[in-house]
Amino acid sequence: MSDFRFAVNVLPKDGILDPQGRAVEGSLGHLGVEGVSGVRVGRRVELTVDAATEADARATVERLASELFSNPLIESFAIEWVDIHAGAAR
Amino acid sequence: MSDFRFAVNVLPKDGILDPQGRAVEGSLGHLGVEGVSGVRVGRRVELTVDAATEADARATVERLASELFSNPLIESFAIEWVDIHAGAAR
Repeated sequence: MSDFRFAVNVLPKDGILDPQGRAVEGSLGHLGVEGVSGVRVGRRVELTVDAATEADARATVERLASELFSNPLIESFAIEWVDIHAGAAR
Repeated sequence: MSDFRFAVNVLPKDGILDPQGRAVEGSLGHLGVEGVSGVRVGRRVELTVDAATEADARATVERLASELFSNPLIESFAIEWVDIHAGAAR
């Protein structure tokens, strides 16, 4: 068994209202920031899966992404492999 | 001026309590999922910046990430370039 680390990026589907994204765009003027558009706000979940193979680990992540991390009616997700040995985000 | 699209991944810093991550871990047993650990739940913000150069666009994203998208006391962020011509997440 080995540890595999993944990230799941969950975003509102195209065409689905994104109130957090609109709120960000509405606050840009106050910050004096121009030229920003298409803001979408979603979730990012990082997790480690202990499994025999990467395919097994990815299958677990696919299941969690669709059943627990996202609402398939209004959200889409993408799974990303995370280098477990790389530096953390700052 | 050109459009550059970025994603900002915001996660709780190491050592900072992550109640959403604990909640996910607590629900795994009910789903019959084993071998999952180190769950961290954060945000992902995608945005398009219209700027003269990619460096200018990235500077805008850095500012928004630290002032608007994250709380530097308890969260870290990483900026990712997004291929504007690639397919969307499913």
